Amino acid sequence: MDEMTREECWDFLREAEFGRLAFHLADEVHITPVNYAVDGETLLFRTAEGSKLLGIVMNQDCAFEIDEFGDQEARSVVLRGRARLLEEDEEHRAENVPLRPWVAGPEKYNVVEITPLDMSGRSFHLHRPWRHIRLDEQ
Amino acid sequence: MDEMTREECWDFLREAEFGRLAFHLADEVHITPVNYAVDGETLLFRTAEGSKLLGIVMNQDCAFEIDEFGDQEARSVVLRGRARLLEEDEEHRAENVPLRPWVAGPEKYNVVEITPLDMSGRSFHLHRPWRHIRLDEQ
Repeated sequence: MDEMTREECWDFLREAEFGRLAFHLADEVHITPVNYAVDGETLLFRTAEGSKLLGIVMNQDCAFEIDEFGDQEARSVVLRGRARLLEEDEEHRAENVPLRPWVAGPEKYNVVEITPLDMSGRSFHLHRPWRHIRLDEQ
Repeated sequence: MDEMTREECWDFLREAEFGRLAFHLADEVHITPVNYAVDGETLLFRTAEGSKLLGIVMNQDCAFEIDEFGDQEARSVVLRGRARLLEEDEEHRAENVPLRPWVAGPEKYNVVEITPLDMSGRSFHLHRPWRHIRLDEQ
């Protein structure tokens, strides 16, 4: 298992466009998949009104994860940070990044910015002997 | 976008073996990828000593997510529940499920059980016009 450098973490964050946000909602922890894009050293995503928006407005503390699995290797970046609903005059930032909704549907007007405070990434060689066994048997 | 039935959610949870756990650590929310297996209507995973174990021992409230993306469709299951460190005389449960570590390394002795309280799953048709544009251009 290798620790990724900060630069490698940001490269991976820029390549990916789908991650999972963990946030507080009152005294509960919630998790939800989100489409996001990197803007400078922040992440942006759009959201409709709902528990996700309510949660991060009530408590900015959040965590975010992306990962990728190949046959032999995997990598994962985890960060903790602060989420903030952008003001209307800042929302244009979402126009200048590749923030592309994967699902057709009503426009989501709210833009949320995540500012990472701690970030770590790991890449590792996958040890899945049962896969090789399955291949050998074919 | 379609809501998955409870049965479809469990089927997907049984098929997958890798998800992301969101948990409290004091007043922070954390997220981490985990290898897991389904045992009855609970999830089991192994963990070494560390913040994940400390977090769920201090606060059982947690959330868990799995997802899968194809070219055309995606699905995601999100659950909220309670995490509990299994007692030594319950740890054998982890021997009877396909809980297979993806990464070679020191044995992780602690077994944690997640009991879902709320669960929802969604499958959706992916709307990624830029992918089609890229294909058309080739």
